[in-house]
Amino acid sequence: MLKPNMNYADLKDSYLFYNISQKIASYLEAHPGARLLRLGIGDVTLPLCEAVIGALKGAVDDQAAAETFHGYMPECGAPFLREAIAEHYRSRGVNISTDEVFVSSGASDELGDILDLFDRGNTALVIEPAYPAYVDANVMAGRKIIHVPSGEENGFLPAPPDASADGEDAVADIIYICSPNNPTGAVFGRELLKKWVDFANENGSVIIFDAAYEAFIEDASLPRSIFEIEGAKTCAIEICSLSKTAGFTGTRLGYTVIPKALSRCGMNLNAMWVRNRTTKTNGVSYIIQKGGAAVFTPEGREQIEANINYYKQNARILTEALDKAGVHYFGGRNAPYIWLRCPCGADSWSFFDFLLNEGQIVGTPGSGFGSCGEGWFRFSTFGSRNDTEEAAKRLARLIPNFKP
Amino acid sequence: MLKPNMNYADLKDSYLFYNISQKIASYLEAHPGARLLRLGIGDVTLPLCEAVIGALKGAVDDQAAAETFHGYMPECGAPFLREAIAEHYRSRGVNISTDEVFVSSGASDELGDILDLFDRGNTALVIEPAYPAYVDANVMAGRKIIHVPSGEENGFLPAPPDASADGEDAVADIIYICSPNNPTGAVFGRELLKKWVDFANENGSVIIFDAAYEAFIEDASLPRSIFEIEGAKTCAIEICSLSKTAGFTGTRLGYTVIPKALSRCGMNLNAMWVRNRTTKTNGVSYIIQKGGAAVFTPEGREQIEANINYYKQNARILTEALDKAGVHYFGGRNAPYIWLRCPCGADSWSFFDFLLNEGQIVGTPGSGFGSCGEGWFRFSTFGSRNDTEEAAKRLARLIPNFKP
Repeated sequence: MLKPNMNYADLKDSYLFYNISQKIASYLEAHPGARLLRLGIGDVTLPLCEAVIGALKGAVDDQAAAETFHGYMPECGAPFLREAIAEHYRSRGVNISTDEVFVSSGASDELGDILDLFDRGNTALVIEPAYPAYVDANVMAGRKIIHVPSGEENGFLPAPPDASADGEDAVADIIYICSPNNPTGAVFGRELLKKWVDFANENGSVIIFDAAYEAFIEDASLPRSIFEIEGAKTCAIEICSLSKTAGFTGTRLGYTVIPKALSRCGMNLNAMWVRNRTTKTNGVSYIIQKGGAAVFTPEGREQIEANINYYKQNARILTEALDKAGVHYFGGRNAPYIWLRCPCGADSWSFFDFLLNEGQIVGTPGSGFGSCGEGWFRFSTFGSRNDTEEAAKRLARLIPNFKP
Repeated sequence: MLKPNMNYADLKDSYLFYNISQKIASYLEAHPGARLLRLGIGDVTLPLCEAVIGALKGAVDDQAAAETFHGYMPECGAPFLREAIAEHYRSRGVNISTDEVFVSSGASDELGDILDLFDRGNTALVIEPAYPAYVDANVMAGRKIIHVPSGEENGFLPAPPDASADGEDAVADIIYICSPNNPTGAVFGRELLKKWVDFANENGSVIIFDAAYEAFIEDASLPRSIFEIEGAKTCAIEICSLSKTAGFTGTRLGYTVIPKALSRCGMNLNAMWVRNRTTKTNGVSYIIQKGGAAVFTPEGREQIEANINYYKQNARILTEALDKAGVHYFGGRNAPYIWLRCPCGADSWSFFDFLLNEGQIVGTPGSGFGSCGEGWFRFSTFGSRNDTEEAAKRLARLIPNFKP
């Protein structure tokens, strides 16, 4: 008798974004035709830039003629794209070789897949509030989760646990660090990130560094890659995405860096991932990889920079409204998320309901990112300018009247 | 200290297609400029059909304007594509509902991912010769493999083990059936497939039915889907691909059917897969899904049928040459692979070396698909017409002179 993966029974009953979509559906059923201002899920609204569109069209043309047709792609990524990504790192002073770069279908896919490299007896440390899939993907594998809460007191940027004081329980095998952070918008500085790298090296942990939002960092003193930190190549895997960098949320492309210097128990993780990819995938679509490569051209860089600046302007519009309303928040600078304290000590879902019902504004309840997110709320800055400006106006009007 | 997934150490040292590529590389180094006739890996050579190209272009255009731009796609697949696939099943008399269809990045990706649904203590039955990833993906999870050899005596189509006679060891939890088969080209008939379905239902096993080559079946009496067999909905998952059906090897798209009636130990596998997808992926590229949907239009069906007929003509050209040379083979009808007995009792790699060195023909050694494939050899019929015709000529000339 086949036994299913019973760990699925340990998953919490529902998923944050699913709950939100159900609430929206109910609202729209009760208010047909209502126009919602969507600052909830971090989905982009600007179209793909010209350089990417041109490359995608060229690739579709390639697939239309036998002479230029591309069949199976190399499992770890097309050489032209792996090289473009490695060169992009090198241009920022981070020395990564082409065969340390793996092309993926996106960070969310890779965050699930990569766990196959690790024993199921490992523990996973998740700094909360956190992207819910970090926890769920590990629960599916039966791993014990070490929840490390963060909060205002440390600016949502905790230091590593003190292994000597906190005991063995504090020393996790897999450590998730997302910087710039989703949902809090907090960004690790070099000094603090170095402490985590040292902690991981000392304890033999592996850091999964989620750099999906690195393109939003404007403060040059902040690290955009964990590999800017000395020692990271022996303890970290970096997972990146073009979703927010270049508007690929629906086009799907990401990349992962696994240094060749990263080994544990005599097993080299880069070599293991090559073996995983050659067994479990036939690579990412040629068309999409060609589109992705255009992001790393000078023309592409310039165009995506313009898009990123558009979202940064959204952030300024929203934070100005919050400033005026006296709302306390993190993020919105160096990060595409604004993480605000719900006014009047309200809980996250009450504030969600208030904004939806009174302002037709959709945000994301902070409690969905872990219990220490209770009382907090996330705005995405990826909405359209119109929605963002209108939401800012309504927030300025509504918040002073909010009584939970 | 992080412990890697030590099951990777149990993987056999190298991968069939990697070995072939190394042999080819060595040959080309020794013979620069040599033109190889590639009948090895099952990669298509015809470009995408017009209907698909048109849909891909339209989708790229959609991504170029804010009004038509698509961000995150539903994790289980775009409704338009899920519905087109379900309708395609229904048009063939198989009643599948839209929410039993899941869009994937391709069968090879899905064959790896789907195993997350099962406990690692389960056993996996693999009918050999077999696609190597069935075994490797389960070795990576630490599962015990039950190798069921097949051979000429049963036309490479074995009956289920006799649980009462063969003991508990014969009753596997996960059963792989690939029909039309890669590499042997053998296709299960309804009666024999029904025996496997009954066996799975009686023993609580789950069949992973790999239907990647179903489009090549021309004999109407042969089942193209396991769901044509009564009882399959309570014991089978069907994994399909557009790679061979519509030339998507480098474009990447597939689909999976998990019936809502499929449960084990109180866990519903369809619901588990929804949860898996919503946690571990953000869906397949909008552009590629639009291209895939065009395959299911009347125009698309007609155009891919023409391409499939082109490959079937390749099969006729090759099998005629083998007939003339007195070589015994399976497949080549209802299947895109030809599985031949190496002449003069040669072993698979000797015949590979002979064809490469003497005929510049690349095939696939049967021993790479399991030990019972030793002495056999696979040709793909997905090559270009020129290569196929030239290979047929050379085979007719070379085989009579082959002395291992």
